Amino acid sequence: MVHIKRVLVLYVGGTIGMKKNYKGVLCPTPNAFFNEVKSHPEMHDSYWVNENPDKLLEANELALPRNYDPQQITYQIVEYSPLLDSSNMTCKDWIRLASDIEYYYNSYDGFIILHGTDTLGYTAAALSFMFEGLQKPVIVTGSQIPIYESRSDAKDNFTKSLVIAGSFDIPEVCVFFANKLFRGNRVTKINTDMLDAFDSPNYHSLVDVGISFKMYEHYIKKVDYNQSFTAYTNLNPNVAVLYFFPTINAEMLESFLRTSVEGVVIQSFGTGNIPSERKDILKVLKEAINRNTLIVNITQCARGTVISSYESGKVLDEIGIVSGKDMTVEAALTKLAYVLGLQELTFMQKVMLMKTNLRGEMTP
Amino acid sequence: MVHIKRVLVLYVGGTIGMKKNYKGVLCPTPNAFFNEVKSHPEMHDSYWVNENPDKLLEANELALPRNYDPQQITYQIVEYSPLLDSSNMTCKDWIRLASDIEYYYNSYDGFIILHGTDTLGYTAAALSFMFEGLQKPVIVTGSQIPIYESRSDAKDNFTKSLVIAGSFDIPEVCVFFANKLFRGNRVTKINTDMLDAFDSPNYHSLVDVGISFKMYEHYIKKVDYNQSFTAYTNLNPNVAVLYFFPTINAEMLESFLRTSVEGVVIQSFGTGNIPSERKDILKVLKEAINRNTLIVNITQCARGTVISSYESGKVLDEIGIVSGKDMTVEAALTKLAYVLGLQELTFMQKVMLMKTNLRGEMTP
Amino acid sequence: MVHIKRVLVLYVGGTIGMKKNYKGVLCPTPNAFFNEVKSHPEMHDSYWVNENPDKLLEANELALPRNYDPQQITYQIVEYSPLLDSSNMTCKDWIRLASDIEYYYNSYDGFIILHGTDTLGYTAAALSFMFEGLQKPVIVTGSQIPIYESRSDAKDNFTKSLVIAGSFDIPEVCVFFANKLFRGNRVTKINTDMLDAFDSPNYHSLVDVGISFKMYEHYIKKVDYNQSFTAYTNLNPNVAVLYFFPTINAEMLESFLRTSVEGVVIQSFGTGNIPSERKDILKVLKEAINRNTLIVNITQCARGTVISSYESGKVLDEIGIVSGKDMTVEAALTKLAYVLGLQELTFMQKVMLMKTNLRGEMTP
Amino acid sequence: MVHIKRVLVLYVGGTIGMKKNYKGVLCPTPNAFFNEVKSHPEMHDSYWVNENPDKLLEANELALPRNYDPQQITYQIVEYSPLLDSSNMTCKDWIRLASDIEYYYNSYDGFIILHGTDTLGYTAAALSFMFEGLQKPVIVTGSQIPIYESRSDAKDNFTKSLVIAGSFDIPEVCVFFANKLFRGNRVTKINTDMLDAFDSPNYHSLVDVGISFKMYEHYIKKVDYNQSFTAYTNLNPNVAVLYFFPTINAEMLESFLRTSVEGVVIQSFGTGNIPSERKDILKVLKEAINRNTLIVNITQCARGTVISSYESGKVLDEIGIVSGKDMTVEAALTKLAYVLGLQELTFMQKVMLMKTNLRGEMTP
Repeated sequence: MVHIKRVLVLYVGGTIGMKKNYKGVLCPTPNAFFNEVKSHPEMHDSYWVNENPDKLLEANELALPRNYDPQQITYQIVEYSPLLDSSNMTCKDWIRLASDIEYYYNSYDGFIILHGTDTLGYTAAALSFMFEGLQKPVIVTGSQIPIYESRSDAKDNFTKSLVIAGSFDIPEVCVFFANKLFRGNRVTKINTDMLDAFDSPNYHSLVDVGISFKMYEHYIKKVDYNQSFTAYTNLNPNVAVLYFFPTINAEMLESFLRTSVEGVVIQSFGTGNIPSERKDILKVLKEAINRNTLIVNITQCARGTVISSYESGKVLDEIGIVSGKDMTVEAALTKLAYVLGLQELTFMQKVMLMKTNLRGEMTP
Repeated sequence: MVHIKRVLVLYVGGTIGMKKNYKGVLCPTPNAFFNEVKSHPEMHDSYWVNENPDKLLEANELALPRNYDPQQITYQIVEYSPLLDSSNMTCKDWIRLASDIEYYYNSYDGFIILHGTDTLGYTAAALSFMFEGLQKPVIVTGSQIPIYESRSDAKDNFTKSLVIAGSFDIPEVCVFFANKLFRGNRVTKINTDMLDAFDSPNYHSLVDVGISFKMYEHYIKKVDYNQSFTAYTNLNPNVAVLYFFPTINAEMLESFLRTSVEGVVIQSFGTGNIPSERKDILKVLKEAINRNTLIVNITQCARGTVISSYESGKVLDEIGIVSGKDMTVEAALTKLAYVLGLQELTFMQKVMLMKTNLRGEMTP
Repeated sequence: MVHIKRVLVLYVGGTIGMKKNYKGVLCPTPNAFFNEVKSHPEMHDSYWVNENPDKLLEANELALPRNYDPQQITYQIVEYSPLLDSSNMTCKDWIRLASDIEYYYNSYDGFIILHGTDTLGYTAAALSFMFEGLQKPVIVTGSQIPIYESRSDAKDNFTKSLVIAGSFDIPEVCVFFANKLFRGNRVTKINTDMLDAFDSPNYHSLVDVGISFKMYEHYIKKVDYNQSFTAYTNLNPNVAVLYFFPTINAEMLESFLRTSVEGVVIQSFGTGNIPSERKDILKVLKEAINRNTLIVNITQCARGTVISSYESGKVLDEIGIVSGKDMTVEAALTKLAYVLGLQELTFMQKVMLMKTNLRGEMTP
Repeated sequence: MVHIKRVLVLYVGGTIGMKKNYKGVLCPTPNAFFNEVKSHPEMHDSYWVNENPDKLLEANELALPRNYDPQQITYQIVEYSPLLDSSNMTCKDWIRLASDIEYYYNSYDGFIILHGTDTLGYTAAALSFMFEGLQKPVIVTGSQIPIYESRSDAKDNFTKSLVIAGSFDIPEVCVFFANKLFRGNRVTKINTDMLDAFDSPNYHSLVDVGISFKMYEHYIKKVDYNQSFTAYTNLNPNVAVLYFFPTINAEMLESFLRTSVEGVVIQSFGTGNIPSERKDILKVLKEAINRNTLIVNITQCARGTVISSYESGKVLDEIGIVSGKDMTVEAALTKLAYVLGLQELTFMQKVMLMKTNLRGEMTP
């Protein structure tokens, strides 16, 4: 008796399901994805479905060819309408996604989110904070080339995500792309042109896919069956990112901090430095903190961490800026939205939470 | 008869010359660097200097051990006072550096700038735009660990920069770090922790140093002996960087663009996308452009380029945002400062210049 | 009017077309590959074929979906019978392949060889020497996972090889694998487990495939329309590889060199060193050279080249061992088979030819 | 009170201590290394030595500058006479090294072997098998450029090896090169030209050195204080490596196996395949096994492991060839020398030992 594992696929939008319009511009194509997937024999085993109608829960369930795997993976695709362009997605979309997964949580063994690549890292990080007690894999993936084109990376990313979501006990929000499974809140889009578009600069990949699946057990969270799953959906959208640069001045900084923003991620130089000799800049930052703006300091470098071994870095500690250590900008921003949404907490409790490793997003 | 090549070293500041103070914080150490360098036999051949006093132009000239090289490299170190912390450096420091090199240009065969790593990429990019008709190597380097510590990368970066500045015909502002010579306006600091702190994400290295020097001739500018050298020093400091993020809103954007800023580099999603469905955001950008704010669009991804094959990207072309193609943020910002400083030009001429490859900073 | 480009596919054998037998062992599966390919919509556009029967030369021609490409690529698959296991292939198989391509040369615009990965690098290198005046792409590819499995890399490698063979003017024997096109005689299998199984350690890739095709023009041979194509098929099979190791002794060496071998590639330590203080070993090598055994020295390191800056390396020059510079073992062995097959040449002319860069296989 | 850690340095030979002779050929330079090291302030703190004569055990002890480290590292250099060229080193040299370390084992906290790069991987692997119950670090290092040249990597490799040997509890034979510490029996020389000459293809590095030391604890053996240290020095030198290639034939194979060789590492294709359809080749191998020649099968690919999922691989299991899994050629050869030297064991016990992970040299 073959064991059946069921995966729910939320097709949210993105390049993976786009076609070029008459101007040569890529546009979302509603109601075409399901049939495209169905037509590819490596993604759907129509023979098995016909032979095993009793094993399906729904008529539109698809079946991944089993090859030599011990279990049979079936999956259902729920297409969002309208399809979302990831560069337009924000808090409310992350909340919807979290709510959808919460709604279906008990009915499936794993979840896949098909997403545009532009803000995929933000969505994965946001979900990682919103989900408490997660015991099943939630894999966010997509592609650099639409599934409708011959050279597409969509089938590869999708098929392998299905195998992982249906076979492995990884109780994390993950990102799968180009043969690598990453922790979701460690991921950044690093390449616009090539197929290996994502990287996890400060944390090892969880799984590398080659001829077989190479799991890095030490880096994967253990399933905790004592915790129950909840999706926390009260995000605070008044959070922002501010990139430091040599010509920054107090006027720019103040005008930005004087808006309704309640939490700011600053991307500082190197190991966490800002122009510490510029008293006007420090004053503006200090005033914002006095107004209870939560300011988190991460590095603008692709890899590494904020520390305080330089004179210019020490100053930030003193005025109350929180070290974001080695968090990515995606993790820092969405963690801020999550923490600032915890209304029962005091400002100092929120500061403490920002310094704490909550979901493996920072190295303690 | 051995040929002598003279290199001028401007020691501007940075980790390379720091020591820890009693609190364990790294601080600049004035008037110690020269003697430290002199004490290391691999950086100074005191025997040769004693034997060849007639070959030195100045008493404080140091001599790189010649080993098996055909020419003898000598060098002089000019230490800035006070030493500059690179996270505090801005336009006026770039102007000073450019002026200093212009002043000494005819007296030396090559130039080295010892610089803090935090904004090293900005300085290198700025100088690349300020120098027209450069015919000699200008190499910006530094280190991740102070020269006073045993494990320092300073001696290695400095010694190899001296060999290149004194031996090779590379008429470019370059960055040398961790055995690689990069084009200066292609470089970004990518790592806070490791010794290979810099990368040139969209352009090949010019030289890789192993047992010998591996030059990539196709990627190095040819010397043009018909051009004369000038240092252009009228930078416009009212330039800024604005990083896009999913929770950005029109208020934040407008407050930032309503300052005295005249040029803005936006770091957009993926291949150049912003939230194109948010009419209020587009309106704010359009209004800024109508006020002659020059807005350049680059990607926030570490590698790759802005293109316009997505619907959301097309919108930006239409409202007049300039594609920065594959420029780094360092190149885009300093190019803006340079171009907006060209007072004789109209706004449209400045726009055209921003779209043009001036110093190898973008792929045409 | 769409231009049609025709590609001939020689399906020789290999993992790409294997299935597991009842013992779980992968075995070749005759007469199944064509139908498998035909069933995948990204590899065959049955609609176009039905609409354009007049555009096909043969009934069994397949059509690559055109997507947005300017030309229509069609292809025919010729399956070898029996299918060949690449670990069993040798000179006679390379000769057959060369003859087959010569036979079809004028009828097609490009050629693909589907091959097992084990000796794929040897076949590609052998063909590169056998073909003189090549003006069309010949791409050797395969896969790490059979095409019949969902996670297979076969569709990707095959589809992209078809696009390149039908679209680009690359007059070289190449290897395509895992999004990279390499020069055929520069390739080595470097990984048994992962999908990027091949590398070209001492020569840049010719094309990198991402969202688009990134060509490295400087590294690709220019088409020479003045040369005519010939396939040279008189290989000498009495060639061997001998790996050096610290416990090697004269007895082992002599017993090996006393066989019918006429050419030997030795894989020496580092930059070309052997135990030069062991007079008995040098004597055995010297005697073999005196018997007109052609001995070529390459390094056993994955990257780099043989030079003569060490005392132990100099000795080899003196006894007449030929420096193979930075050739791979695959290139060195098959070049030996080719050169020793040129019967009209003297021993010294063969030695000279081994030292000469014939097909881009060594850095001059 | 500063704690003192003592390191013994065995300077065996290699590029690290060579100078060019009048012909431009690198030659060993006896009796110069100690004084060279002493003249470099980053490798020797003469001030501390003068102030603390009572803390030295021997007059010729050198002291690493302490910088900000908690302990003071001192070291003594024992220079071999004559200096050994690593391409000439073999079993008897490994035995001498093992005996020397055994002799000094209790007097020092850590050991460094300065060694030529050509066979450095063989020496490190051999020592790893010869040492049982090791509780202190033994680090084999060297350089690509002599210490006497300005651009040398010697000071960096040596200084960092000293810090690790004196500071960390790593009870393994290791190799340090180019900022990475590897397990000694996992290392291969992979590059003849660049400074990062070594890699550990199938096992993670133990330590990466950047601004600080990044230790990968999961990959480092734990110290076992219950075991006592012994150096096992009865190696069997009748071991060999045989590289497979497409033109191999039974005559070559038999002539090689008919020598006095008792153990052979074959480097087969891909995941462990040889020409399985060639009955004469299989017969020769089978006969050698019947004569109690121990044959171990590893892959000739730089990365990966021997498995048995192909028909051609299965054959080898059946005739009694031992799978060397993911061992490097260096580990496989020296393990054979070690195992075949265990005279009290039967052939089958030796076969079992070759299949067993003894010192972390293979992935179980």
